[in-house]
Amino acid sequence: MKELSNYILQNENSVYYEVGYSCDNEIVLNLSGDKFFITDARYEIEAKLFTKDCEVIISKDLIKSARKVLKNSKIKTLHFDPSDFTLYSFERLTNNLNIKFKRKPNFSKLKRIIKTKDEIKLISKAMQIGRDGFNRFASFLQDNHSKNEKFLQFKAKEMMSDSGKYDLSFDPIVAINQNSAKPHALPTKTKLHQDDLILVDAGVKYKRYCSDRTCTSSYSKDINFKREQKFSKKEQQKVYDIVLKAQEKAISKARVGMKASKIDKIARDVIEKAGYGKYFVHSTGHGVGLDIHEYPNINSKNDLIIEDNMVFTVEPGIYLPEKFGVRIEDTIVMQNGKAVIL
Amino acid sequence: MKELSNYILQNENSVYYEVGYSCDNEIVLNLSGDKFFITDARYEIEAKLFTKDCEVIISKDLIKSARKVLKNSKIKTLHFDPSDFTLYSFERLTNNLNIKFKRKPNFSKLKRIIKTKDEIKLISKAMQIGRDGFNRFASFLQDNHSKNEKFLQFKAKEMMSDSGKYDLSFDPIVAINQNSAKPHALPTKTKLHQDDLILVDAGVKYKRYCSDRTCTSSYSKDINFKREQKFSKKEQQKVYDIVLKAQEKAISKARVGMKASKIDKIARDVIEKAGYGKYFVHSTGHGVGLDIHEYPNINSKNDLIIEDNMVFTVEPGIYLPEKFGVRIEDTIVMQNGKAVIL
Repeated sequence: MKELSNYILQNENSVYYEVGYSCDNEIVLNLSGDKFFITDARYEIEAKLFTKDCEVIISKDLIKSARKVLKNSKIKTLHFDPSDFTLYSFERLTNNLNIKFKRKPNFSKLKRIIKTKDEIKLISKAMQIGRDGFNRFASFLQDNHSKNEKFLQFKAKEMMSDSGKYDLSFDPIVAINQNSAKPHALPTKTKLHQDDLILVDAGVKYKRYCSDRTCTSSYSKDINFKREQKFSKKEQQKVYDIVLKAQEKAISKARVGMKASKIDKIARDVIEKAGYGKYFVHSTGHGVGLDIHEYPNINSKNDLIIEDNMVFTVEPGIYLPEKFGVRIEDTIVMQNGKAVIL
Repeated sequence: MKELSNYILQNENSVYYEVGYSCDNEIVLNLSGDKFFITDARYEIEAKLFTKDCEVIISKDLIKSARKVLKNSKIKTLHFDPSDFTLYSFERLTNNLNIKFKRKPNFSKLKRIIKTKDEIKLISKAMQIGRDGFNRFASFLQDNHSKNEKFLQFKAKEMMSDSGKYDLSFDPIVAINQNSAKPHALPTKTKLHQDDLILVDAGVKYKRYCSDRTCTSSYSKDINFKREQKFSKKEQQKVYDIVLKAQEKAISKARVGMKASKIDKIARDVIEKAGYGKYFVHSTGHGVGLDIHEYPNINSKNDLIIEDNMVFTVEPGIYLPEKFGVRIEDTIVMQNGKAVIL
């Protein structure tokens, strides 16, 4: 994609990607290569230190300041992402300005679909920290039965973040038995007992890059989050083995040059052939990077061609309402034509 | 304000306020009193159980479904909040629909400026849970010196949420010495030692309603978060006493019938007279309810007349760059013409 040199941007992670720094209140303008970082006084020092090649403007009204910069420029056309502004902000920004605002949906986010070597290192490190967190959580669980999901979710936050040392990619999901049948379960007062099925979906950030992983395990005092799991209930074991097969097959068969939809199909075919097709209610994966959900989408409709250095999750699942759910998720990077688990 | 009976709404807390339930993915339509709650399959059961007088529509594409409902209706005009939609969503929603979309900024949020008795009870309960959290955190601090802000922030989350039992209103601020000079400090590796100044700003939710409180204390093994604080450094004591006086005066002099700006002025005058006016860099308060920041704004420009059953914070502060900051915050409700601390 041709690099845009005339744009306005305010999505936090996109801004970070473009200029090397972002906070929670900023507008970036790139006017034929002249870059402006508009923020409020709280962030003045950091913005001046860390933005690359930007003039930093401190303002109490970011949109007003952006209008002023635009009025003083000779810009005729400005690109923007229509998901980046509320209608209210967009109307304030553009009202009576003699500039053509040209829609470029996701113009910055689309760049991030191919990761650099440095980005892959950061995600790989985040995954390692995440694995350490899963291991700490397993150790905790080994010594703590009969705790409820709400408490266990809190403990998952503690273990994943290493008591606050790392930010979390998202609030962890900790779901027991029936609750795991909901792909986005919220924690309840359900308690964890011997032989229960427990699903944990969690990730951490390292230097702003996210990790993402889901494990489904059987609870005992030897609980671990390894891929090999023994469930005392036959149906759970059967479903687990199907999901594991679907996930491993999608990872081992994924190739550069394939459509994203083909990877989804590899996983989905395994589950459909086993008779559980209608219980695999979401797509097979999503890109991971600065955002926990970014490009590429690995779903049944995406014709995008997979390339080296794309990073995405492979996470098939089977959800049996009122009974239980199984999801197994890893984050992979495409390298030398194939998928490598990060 | 006249009640609107033709509107579209998708702000999570506004939707909760209007129909008694919300999740993280919904659109609500009110078409002359016929209400529709459009969400995805994850929330079907809860939406059907908990929404009041709504027809629940399950959809993979909420905007498409909303368009369908609108097309099938005889609605000519629909009110909406322009902060509620991205430009992208708004254009998808309205494209080629023969309906006039009429801007009503904050039409639902403005209703919440006056709280019901039940809402005040919930906020009061949230404040009590918050106080318990502050006390737990003080006890923890008494036994734990030399820990860094990042770890202490994590512990603040643990103590405030009672290990995950309650949601937090926001990520707590835990700031030591210089770092407290930033009104929205992020936690660093700075460690807490004897006689340090520590600022803690934290709140919890009870049945979705927020609490908000800030305490500034001197660290010792007897640390507490009471209003009376003894600082070993003279300047800290002086600044603390000024902020305390400003806060207490604003609370004791606030009256129904006053402009919001008058309450800001009462606090600001104390600080200005003491010679620290330019270091009080934010407004005196904000409404608290379902959102942690809602109406009314208590700032120097707001001419809004204060009424009974408004709930807002009173939180003056003095921030001396590179040195330290002091903020003292309580949440109050206007009752029988006066402010009562919740």
